[in-house]
Amino acid sequence: MKYCSTCGHPVEQRIPQGDNRHRYVCTRCEAIHYQNPRIVAGTVPIWEGRILLCRRAIEPRYGYWTLPAGFMENSETTLEAATRETWEEALAEVTVDNLYTIIHVPHIDQVHMFYRAALTNGEFGAGEESLETQLFAIEDIPWDELSFPTVRRTLELYVEDVQKEHFPVHVDDIRYRMGSATERR
Amino acid sequence: MKYCSTCGHPVEQRIPQGDNRHRYVCTRCEAIHYQNPRIVAGTVPIWEGRILLCRRAIEPRYGYWTLPAGFMENSETTLEAATRETWEEALAEVTVDNLYTIIHVPHIDQVHMFYRAALTNGEFGAGEESLETQLFAIEDIPWDELSFPTVRRTLELYVEDVQKEHFPVHVDDIRYRMGSATERR
Repeated sequence: MKYCSTCGHPVEQRIPQGDNRHRYVCTRCEAIHYQNPRIVAGTVPIWEGRILLCRRAIEPRYGYWTLPAGFMENSETTLEAATRETWEEALAEVTVDNLYTIIHVPHIDQVHMFYRAALTNGEFGAGEESLETQLFAIEDIPWDELSFPTVRRTLELYVEDVQKEHFPVHVDDIRYRMGSATERR
Repeated sequence: MKYCSTCGHPVEQRIPQGDNRHRYVCTRCEAIHYQNPRIVAGTVPIWEGRILLCRRAIEPRYGYWTLPAGFMENSETTLEAATRETWEEALAEVTVDNLYTIIHVPHIDQVHMFYRAALTNGEFGAGEESLETQLFAIEDIPWDELSFPTVRRTLELYVEDVQKEHFPVHVDDIRYRMGSATERR
């Protein structure tokens, strides 16, 4: 951010009165421009015991497999965002079972939330952001070709929970360490 | 938003190519400025069966009772945000038990997340944004003087769950209807 979105004049970084963090503050109108984390919402879509994954047609991670997910928009809930993204990326209608994972990614200011869901009628396709979509049995999950650490973590938890036949809400973090995204157990 | 935060020129609202929503787009540099919901994180701080509430020293809802909570900052997790806000508003150290409520408030583009927590040593005070803080037994919760619908909903759920001695994660929405914030059951 270089310019004030309210009046168009340059901003500077300083700590406003009564605050304890640097913010972008307008040098003319004094407007304070806060920046906050964003939510990514998606689903783990299941059909007959298999998981629907999408191969990304966009960067980042073009060509890698992902769970359908994307940035939550204003005026919607995380559940609405998750089902919307599942429709947009996989052309799949889903019935949501429960909120499943909440994974913080603080080094990129994001919170990823995945709902466990069932395909409503088994139909799916490839939306504009997907090269293809495909149902994978658990033993066929393409672990070496997954798109993002939060997708991997959610699938790892899902595979464990299928064994236990119990799907509690998991809250977890992905921390950036040693030059790569690593996992905190 | 009236001006581009990247180049300072006026923005207009239009649907960018490949998108399906109106966005603020710069009339000169074509930068697209997305706007996304914000997370409010807080705790339900418990000490010897009583709940710690804060009486607000700031608008909105000056003078009303609230659970300690505030906007999540960049570079933190919701748990870190919740415990930070509890310290800032109630000068209380807490040990978090579990994520407890996730309440969407889509008409104001917010998601409120409360963690169930225990005061670590029973000490608390009034931070800069609080007039006072006080422990309330469940039968003494000031229902008519609560600050926000998400605080009310979280306390209602907590009171029910204390009876059941079971505190699952609750996902809920607060919808704006008929001129007032109402609740969807």
